[in-house]
Amino acid sequence: MQASELTATRRPRVVVVGAGFAGINAAQRLGKLAVDVTVIDKTNHHTFQPLLYQVALAVLSPGDIAQPIRRILSGHDNIEILMDEVRDVDARAQKLLLGSGTDVIYDYLILATGSTHSYFAHPEWEKVAPGLKMLEDATEIRRRVLLAFELAERQMVEKGSHPPLQFVIVGGGPTGVELAGAISDISRLYMQKDFRHIDPKSAKVLILEGSPHVLAAYPQDLQDSAVRQLNEINVQVRTNAKVTDVQPGYVMVGDPPNAEKIESVCTLWAAGVKASPLGKALADSLGDPAILDRRGCVIVDGHLNPKGHPEIFLCGDLAHYEENGKLVPGVAQPAMQMGNYAAERIGLLVSNPAAAQRQKDFHYFDKGDMATIGRKAAVARIAWPFKAHWSGFMAWLTWLTVHIFFLIGFRNRLSVFRSWAYTYIRFRDGVRLIVGSQDLPGWDALTKEDVVKKEGDTEVVVKS
Amino acid sequence: MQASELTATRRPRVVVVGAGFAGINAAQRLGKLAVDVTVIDKTNHHTFQPLLYQVALAVLSPGDIAQPIRRILSGHDNIEILMDEVRDVDARAQKLLLGSGTDVIYDYLILATGSTHSYFAHPEWEKVAPGLKMLEDATEIRRRVLLAFELAERQMVEKGSHPPLQFVIVGGGPTGVELAGAISDISRLYMQKDFRHIDPKSAKVLILEGSPHVLAAYPQDLQDSAVRQLNEINVQVRTNAKVTDVQPGYVMVGDPPNAEKIESVCTLWAAGVKASPLGKALADSLGDPAILDRRGCVIVDGHLNPKGHPEIFLCGDLAHYEENGKLVPGVAQPAMQMGNYAAERIGLLVSNPAAAQRQKDFHYFDKGDMATIGRKAAVARIAWPFKAHWSGFMAWLTWLTVHIFFLIGFRNRLSVFRSWAYTYIRFRDGVRLIVGSQDLPGWDALTKEDVVKKEGDTEVVVKS
Repeated sequence: MQASELTATRRPRVVVVGAGFAGINAAQRLGKLAVDVTVIDKTNHHTFQPLLYQVALAVLSPGDIAQPIRRILSGHDNIEILMDEVRDVDARAQKLLLGSGTDVIYDYLILATGSTHSYFAHPEWEKVAPGLKMLEDATEIRRRVLLAFELAERQMVEKGSHPPLQFVIVGGGPTGVELAGAISDISRLYMQKDFRHIDPKSAKVLILEGSPHVLAAYPQDLQDSAVRQLNEINVQVRTNAKVTDVQPGYVMVGDPPNAEKIESVCTLWAAGVKASPLGKALADSLGDPAILDRRGCVIVDGHLNPKGHPEIFLCGDLAHYEENGKLVPGVAQPAMQMGNYAAERIGLLVSNPAAAQRQKDFHYFDKGDMATIGRKAAVARIAWPFKAHWSGFMAWLTWLTVHIFFLIGFRNRLSVFRSWAYTYIRFRDGVRLIVGSQDLPGWDALTKEDVVKKEGDTEVVVKS
Repeated sequence: MQASELTATRRPRVVVVGAGFAGINAAQRLGKLAVDVTVIDKTNHHTFQPLLYQVALAVLSPGDIAQPIRRILSGHDNIEILMDEVRDVDARAQKLLLGSGTDVIYDYLILATGSTHSYFAHPEWEKVAPGLKMLEDATEIRRRVLLAFELAERQMVEKGSHPPLQFVIVGGGPTGVELAGAISDISRLYMQKDFRHIDPKSAKVLILEGSPHVLAAYPQDLQDSAVRQLNEINVQVRTNAKVTDVQPGYVMVGDPPNAEKIESVCTLWAAGVKASPLGKALADSLGDPAILDRRGCVIVDGHLNPKGHPEIFLCGDLAHYEENGKLVPGVAQPAMQMGNYAAERIGLLVSNPAAAQRQKDFHYFDKGDMATIGRKAAVARIAWPFKAHWSGFMAWLTWLTVHIFFLIGFRNRLSVFRSWAYTYIRFRDGVRLIVGSQDLPGWDALTKEDVVKKEGDTEVVVKS
């Protein structure tokens, strides 16, 4: 068959928006079907988000956990890729409006633009307390954490004192816990011989969690174990801690007049989930605000469609899908499975409508959850191939193995493996580069308050 | 001996400003002497500048060619490191004024803050045509080059045409030649299967060199060979091309009324050398403008001191040192040797003034020069251990070997070796990540002019 014959009749156009876990998995499957595919993402790369915190804390390089989308999908001639932003959806006309001003028409649409952090209606806090969603965020967090140590050393030389190195993390979900563990690691293990005037081990990490428990999605025994393991590496956890203000140099907890001021040399945000704005754009286009949940995610049926639109699929964090009355969580595994399901379903709708009629609802195949707590510690809820709750070193080894296997791309896997061997065995972190400015929000304010001074061999906090 | 005895008498304080090749080499040597050392750099890392162009063109990661200064010097207890900027020099009081507002007193001073690109008194051109001196520059150049291809693909989908992908490099020194070769590589070799609508191979690279020859420091036969090798990989070279304006989307060559407009989707700057402003600060402090040459470099004697100041050393690009009437070039090898010499001399001045009296003048031990011209081609002027002029593959192999050996740090060496094997053997570049915005200066202007359209299987330029 000649190429011209193949393209003689127009093939259905599937547009995939977002190249995260859901979008990439959908695209890879669609690449094998008799459809034309357009993948749209505002970046040129797919990011392995579960390891973003390791880029932030200088264990891995951006290139270790990110791959160009074109590279991942280069084997599929029926896939075109646009680096562009989708501004709006016109579900009736079946078209998308792009940031560059043009329209893209679709026969089938997969929306997989995920979620971002919610700053509790205080978007101005973002500048002070960056979250961790993209490569750029990871580099910025790395800059701030490492800069805090640099500025403390500098101040010690110049003034003989420095503000207490307390890092505050708002949110005790997996991201918050993993960031906290990694900051503790870097201060305890990897910088021992690097400074002459400060003691990096004196750094403290504090997790502020609004609910009664960290790692809300985990069973109670693993939550308790996580807190114990965090405490062992000098990370304090405060639950039921409602953050009411975030400013350069400090965080307020609780409502006035009982609000408490907590000093922070660097505040990171790992709380709240807010859907990508495309959820609202879709709801507006459909004239049906009821399809959105409280977070802005789109409520979908068993085929991952919003009500009445079998040509539109929501996958990953942007989808609100309940199974047996329980919300499928916004993590990598269900996103990948949803992407696969949507692609498979489109394949059936295109080539075998009768089989599509019989297709079962989406089912989340839950293999479990894991979160690391620094080097050598973790919690793991294993749901497949057997059920178990693991803590500590065993859980950490499991995490290590699983993540080596699931990283996309042979090159990255080798590189990550080498970096981990280097970091975890030889206690050296690889990529402790500060890129960007020397400004750290709040540093100036802090240096006017409590300071740490050296008295003999120990550091003491002096109240001003 | 107890630590307290060692520190009972104050040891001479040596301050090293700048942690490039000269500064790092000086510090490593000073670390073994009975002096106290302060290393000051505005970044936290030492950059292996000769490979910066490979970070810019996505062959290597920033972490491959940069190392934290603290890491490199962590074995020396007598070295403290300050991440800070030196604002001014007070040579009479023997102190430096830092950006953070404090003073640092020195007994001996090594100034090694290098040079930057000169924009021919047009600093406003820098925004349009970034140079390549720091990691941040490399990331920005990578962003612009890769974005040009992304935007062309996008425009092809949306409008069926795109502006010609012509990359213009101002300056035909080693940096210009290596950047040109690397852009040619990326367009010809590494993106073949990635785009559906544009032909990355249609990209053109143009070097504009103001003097009659590229690679001015090389012998004529290698200059000629370089031009031939560049032409073979689709890089055009124009010598005697005086750039008179740089604007988003184009470059002007020659003076009006005969000025010629050359369209450019992305302009990079690799021309001119301007000394770090600390040279002028030192001259001002000494009240002696005659110690500066035309570029702002400090003229030094055989001990690398400016006239009358045996306690101040200039090393690397910031030093103007003539040997047998010939200026020692501003590249890595002499910088390293100068750093070593200055440290050695300080050691003698401190411990053995009689031997310092007898110390010979600095001598540049010239091993040669090399510049790559994309994958598999290079020019090499070998001066040691034998004399030879090599071109082509042999020169490239030599370059490869030398650079693997000279990269600081075992970790980086392994990583770079792997990346190169991957890139040069398997034709895949590793880290083609665009980080930052989707703005490319001049793109909008260009899209209103000549465009490339697909006519059948070939692309043609259509004059508007």
